[in-house]
Formats: sequence, structure tokens, C-alpha cells
Amino acid sequence: MLPILSAKETDSIKRRLLERANTDYSEQQKIVDAVLEDVRKTGDRALFSYIARFDGFEASADNLMVTEEETDEAFGAVDPVLLEVMKEAAANIEEFHNHQKRENWFIEKGGKYLGQLYLPVEYAGVYVPGGKAAYPSSVLMNIIPAKCAGVTNIFVATPAQGGKVNPATIAAAKIAGAHKIYKMGGAQAIAAFAYGTESVPRVDKITGPGNIFVALAKKSVYGQAGIDMIAGPSEVLVIADDSANERFIAADFLSQAEHDELAACMLVTVSRKKAEAVRAEIIRQAELLPKKDIVLKSLENYGTIIVAETLDEAVETANRIAPEHLEICTEDPEALLPGIRNAGSIFLGEYSPEPLGDYFAGTNHVLPTNGTARFSSPLNVDDFQKKSSVIYYSREEFEKVFRKVAAFAQAEGLDAHARSAAIRFEG
Amino acid sequence: MLPILSAKETDSIKRRLLERANTDYSEQQKIVDAVLEDVRKTGDRALFSYIARFDGFEASADNLMVTEEETDEAFGAVDPVLLEVMKEAAANIEEFHNHQKRENWFIEKGGKYLGQLYLPVEYAGVYVPGGKAAYPSSVLMNIIPAKCAGVTNIFVATPAQGGKVNPATIAAAKIAGAHKIYKMGGAQAIAAFAYGTESVPRVDKITGPGNIFVALAKKSVYGQAGIDMIAGPSEVLVIADDSANERFIAADFLSQAEHDELAACMLVTVSRKKAEAVRAEIIRQAELLPKKDIVLKSLENYGTIIVAETLDEAVETANRIAPEHLEICTEDPEALLPGIRNAGSIFLGEYSPEPLGDYFAGTNHVLPTNGTARFSSPLNVDDFQKKSSVIYYSREEFEKVFRKVAAFAQAEGLDAHARSAAIRFEG
Repeated sequence: MLPILSAKETDSIKRRLLERANTDYSEQQKIVDAVLEDVRKTGDRALFSYIARFDGFEASADNLMVTEEETDEAFGAVDPVLLEVMKEAAANIEEFHNHQKRENWFIEKGGKYLGQLYLPVEYAGVYVPGGKAAYPSSVLMNIIPAKCAGVTNIFVATPAQGGKVNPATIAAAKIAGAHKIYKMGGAQAIAAFAYGTESVPRVDKITGPGNIFVALAKKSVYGQAGIDMIAGPSEVLVIADDSANERFIAADFLSQAEHDELAACMLVTVSRKKAEAVRAEIIRQAELLPKKDIVLKSLENYGTIIVAETLDEAVETANRIAPEHLEICTEDPEALLPGIRNAGSIFLGEYSPEPLGDYFAGTNHVLPTNGTARFSSPLNVDDFQKKSSVIYYSREEFEKVFRKVAAFAQAEGLDAHARSAAIRFEG
Repeated sequence: MLPILSAKETDSIKRRLLERANTDYSEQQKIVDAVLEDVRKTGDRALFSYIARFDGFEASADNLMVTEEETDEAFGAVDPVLLEVMKEAAANIEEFHNHQKRENWFIEKGGKYLGQLYLPVEYAGVYVPGGKAAYPSSVLMNIIPAKCAGVTNIFVATPAQGGKVNPATIAAAKIAGAHKIYKMGGAQAIAAFAYGTESVPRVDKITGPGNIFVALAKKSVYGQAGIDMIAGPSEVLVIADDSANERFIAADFLSQAEHDELAACMLVTVSRKKAEAVRAEIIRQAELLPKKDIVLKSLENYGTIIVAETLDEAVETANRIAPEHLEICTEDPEALLPGIRNAGSIFLGEYSPEPLGDYFAGTNHVLPTNGTARFSSPLNVDDFQKKSSVIYYSREEFEKVFRKVAAFAQAEGLDAHARSAAIRFEG
């Protein structure tokens, strides 16, 4: 467990990480395809029948949504301390995501201008998993960016075993600004959002985590609606030098490992001594955890310690791994920031541990996993907006350039395009 | 042909448009899956063998890239007038897309800050179709946003029949700022970009149009690499009042119709008289076009004229269709702009016809098609960048909140997360 390797092995580590996503889901895909088709064709009828089968809840047009009464009950049922923390976290998340918004802009020159508009999607559907545990932090993280984007119809879907939704889920959704909560889960919920049914409006964008059926359904409806990323197994990578506190790093390592057996925890350090100290601390602390079994399997599978020659090499290793979470625990963490090219969320210094970002600081915890930080981003306001271009040319301005437009069109063999330019100055 | 309908029929028009995308491509998908698997497993060997088979070109590690000599030849072979227009268009496109860039930002408060970084992807792969016609405008539109984003490795893939690449493609790629041009096409090119081979580096983001095999391959590798949208059949919607010039509108209509038989051209007007006048003009002008056959089929299939009661209703109709191109030809086109919620590119007034945006003005012509403007955007700099979040808390700041972080984690049953926060202030 926890081999201590050199940075030369980064590529093989990376390959091993990527293999986590190589499961064959063709059987599940068939089930999902059938559900999607069914809901697309028969709407509510199929939706209600799947809800009855999977959630033991006799859904109908009348009871599909969480009521005001249920909402009041939920707020009464949640620990008031948690409610206060959720509200404070929500305010932090809102402040950060409000900074992501952009203003429409125009470039004006004489009698012409170009511009770009930032417009919210009209309908957003946020999926919230059901099951034993509730993750209200994830509810906040998905809904608040939509709210900041200006989405006026934010709808939550969550499975309701026996018609009951977890009170923390309801409270978090309401604190975050959801407009409606639908008691529906699984691929059938994604289908209802993507195609619309008699009781559920079609949405423009679908986000939120879910089990493999939900994930496959989201990928399948991509194009009918926008989706966020497909979440994969997650990871943390810690860069540490001799100044780092091994107890802290070990605890952060383990917080990632408790998520699931596929979670990957990596330490890259320039100090062999630190590598060994952290390793010992991880093994010591792991024994103390309630989720020890999951933690040990995750460490066994993917726990890795790398000793790099220099901090530059450590940064390069991180860039090649492109981790979801990157903690920099060095004497001068900011000094490494300009070298980082691929990472979902970057935690600077020993007092910015990953759970601070998961729960409270305000950045999003929905992050690109399994190396996709190479090309994708934390969930953000842009995910709930789209851009439109605007072009205006006056007659005089277009007269200056229409021949060029026509020439370019003609060169591509598109005569009607050329004519559309030229006809303005004919006859 | 060209029925004149009321705005009440918008939903059925919309359904008919969406059906354009309902082709069953499962046979092609099987072929694509095999090609992807093959290139993933055997790299160059499979890549070169497919290139030989499909392009009649014996590719090897030595001749896969366009050489400097070929580049010089290409510049010599392209009409100098076209070269000049391409350069001017490229400058316009670059100026517009440079405005899309964002600066990193930080929110600082006492001993803590949050921030967001905008980082270019490291490798972008741009697909350029081969075939009889070359579309250098599309080459510019795909490469320049990547360049503006700061991508340092912009690679083009294009099929080279017998080893020859169209000179206009080479010239456009070089003017736009491509770093390398690979002579490879089809699903095998997408596979090479997504997985990497001995001769082709794996890229982070793949964009660009292509035939159905290319489109299916892009969708399949999504997740391995980022992709742009899957382009579908395109459309233009013109909003016109009595002031509009029917000759101009008819010409614009036809410029869309010449693209392909699935292209949809729509006019929404508040004037029955104008509807009839435009209709007559379209039929008259269609006869004059070299691509008359395609044009008439497109008009027959999807050409639609809607008479709305009011301009508000016309705008609402446009929003429900969510057209790729929206032309507003009314007396005061700007007055309608605030009402537009769903449109790829918006053309204001009679001297801003769609081909101006296709070729020259500077906005992107890679646009969301077939109603996807509800949730997606013109190709833009964001497509070639990703964001990273940054979190820094000092010891003092984290001490103020760590109990809240731990409480939230504990409420979700994630003890190791709670411990990671708490351990900083223990013992």
C-alpha cells in the first residue's frame, strides 16, 4: 500500500487512473435507452410507472411536486445549526459565482458594431440523488450557479422513496433558490427533463450527480438538452515540501479516500523524509475512521506517493495528472500557482484543506474528475448561460465590404451567399 | 411550397424541424466504434491503414504533416484577392474573439481570498473536411478562437486525397495560426486526436465540422477530450415588418437554403402583404441559382412563412424556434433585441445579412443549430479555455470557520472530511 515512486512513473500512474473509467456499461445503457424511449413516447404514463416501480411511490400529476407544507416540515426537521451553516455557505457560494457573471458588450466603430450577449437558459433541471445519505452541499453547489446566471425556472428532480424527500435536500434546494422540486429519480427523471411530459416541463440544461443510470441517461440526452460534465471517480493531489505538516496532509488524503474505492489520493513531495512521514501518518489515521474499509481499499488501489526532484517537477507531475483537487502545501504556495495548467480547484497552504472548498468557502465543488481538468471547468455560471452574437452594419459600412464578402462566398462555391451580399447594391 | 401560417403553428413547425435530427445512425456508429477501437489499440498502424483505404494516401510518420514547401506552394496557388480577404476577415475574427477573453480574478477579504483562473487547453485539434469544395472560412472560424485563448499547440486534421491538401485550407490554417496540419481525416483522425498515436499527440479539445462519421466519432470520444457542439442541420429565421425589403430577405433566405436540403428557412412577419411579396421573390430568385435543386428541396421541406399578430409575437416565435441565425429586418431592429432569448447569431437591419457574419464581420459562424441555441453558444474563446478555482485561507481565517465546515461534513456522514478540518486545531 502507498508505494513511494519517482516522478518518472507519472505516465503509468496516469494510465492506471484513467482505467478507472473503463467499465463496460452496455447492459445498463440498454435499460437506460428503453426508459428514455418510453418516457419520450408516453410521457407521464411511463414516468409514473417507473417511479412506482423504483421508488415505491404512486406518483400522479397531483403529488409529483414537493408542497409548501412539506417544505415547512423540512425546515422544521433539519438541525438548526446545520441550517445556519447551509445559509452561510450559500451566501459564500452566491458571492463567488456572482463574480463569474459577464456583462453584454459591444465593439462599436463608425456605422457598425459587433456584440456579445450573455443570456440565461430558461429552464434548468438539477438532479439530486436520493438514497440513505443526503448531500445538501451538492444541492447548493448545483443550484446557486443557475440562480446567479439568472435562470428563472430552476427545477430539482430527486427520487422520493415512498413519496418522502430527505428534509435536508428540500431545505438546501429552497435556500439555494430552486423554484420546484419534482419527486422523480433515475433515468426516467432525466428523460422527463429532456423531453418534457404532461406534468414536467422540458428543460434546457440538466446538471447534478447521480448513479450510473442517471449518468448514462444524461450522456444520451446530450443534444436534446445541455448537460454538465459526466462525473467520474475523483482525486486529490497534494504537493508538499519539507515545511508541510504530515498530520494535516494525511487527514486531507483520507478525506478524499472515504468517498469511494475508486477515489485516488496522491502526494507529490520533494522530500523523501516527508514522503515517509506522511505515509506513516496516513496509515495511523486511517485506523481511526468509521469508513476505514472504503478508505483502505481506495489507498490500496490508487494511493500514491511520488518523490520529485524539484518543485518544478512536482508541478509538472500535477499538470500531467490534471487532478480534480490540488492542494499546495509548501512554504510559498503562491509561487507555484503560475505553473499550474491543469487542476479543477487549487487549495493554497495548510489552512485551506479540500473540505473548506467542498462545503463552505464559496467555490464550486462540482469539479472535473479523472483528468478532464485538461479541458473542463468547475461548474459555474457559464454552464447556465449561453452567448449570442450581434452584428450591425449600416448601409455605408456594408457597402465598403460587400464585395469582399461576395468574393469569399464565391470562392467557396456558395453563389446564393454571394448574391445575398451583392443584391443590396444592385439595380 | 412556402405555406403562410399563423404563429399558433410554431410548436408544430418546431417539432418538424427537430425531426431533421432523428436519423438512425446505428450502422455508421458501429463502423466508427471499430475505427476508434482500432486506432486506440494500435495507433499509427491503424491510422495509416485507414488513411490508405479512405484517402488513397500511403501515410507514414514522415509524410503525415503538411511541409513548409507545401505551405509555400499553397500560398502561391490561392487567388491573391481571396488571400487578402481571408487576412482581413481573420483580423476581424481575431479582434472580436480577443474581446471574449477574461482576466483571472481574485476576491480578497482579510486573510483569505478566492479566485478564478482562465487557462488555455494545451492542445487543440481542429477538424477540416476535405472533399471537392474547400471552406477556408470555417478553418478561420475554428482556429482563431483557439489562438485567442492562448492555445500553444493548434493542430489541424484534414483528409488528403492522394496526399494533397486543398491550398485554400492550408493558407487559411496558416493565416489563422495553426501550428501543424496532419493529413488525416474521418473517424480515424478524431481517434488519433483523442487517444494519441506514435505520430499524433493526444489533444485536449477537438472542434470542427465533418461528415456523419466524424460527428459520431466526436460524440464517442467526448470525455477523453472536450468537443465543440455536434453540428446539426442549420436554419435562418427572419423577422420582418412592412419596412423590410423583400428582395433582400428573399436572397438571405436562399443563401441558407443552398447549404443543404435539410436547411430550414423561416420568415416571421407582422404583414400578410410582406409575407406574400417575399414568397413571390423567393420563388423568382430561386430560379436564378446554380444550386436551384438543393434550394428548392430545402424550401419544399422546411421553408416556412409565419404571419404574427404583433412584433412581440414574432419575437416569441423566434425564441421558441431558437434559430441558428436570426435576422431582424424591421424599422427599429435594436428595439427587439432585449426580447431575444434564444438565437445563435443576431443580424440587425437590412445591411447585416447572414453572409456578412459567415465570412467577414468577425463573429463566429460556428453556431448552435437545430434549436440548441436554447443552451449552447457560438464557438468562442471559452471553448478553448478552462477555469480553475483558487482558495486561500490563513490560519486565523480558517480557525473562524473550521467548526462550520466540520459540522456540514458530519451532517453528510463524511467523518474524514470533518477530521481534515478539525485536525488543524487539535493537540
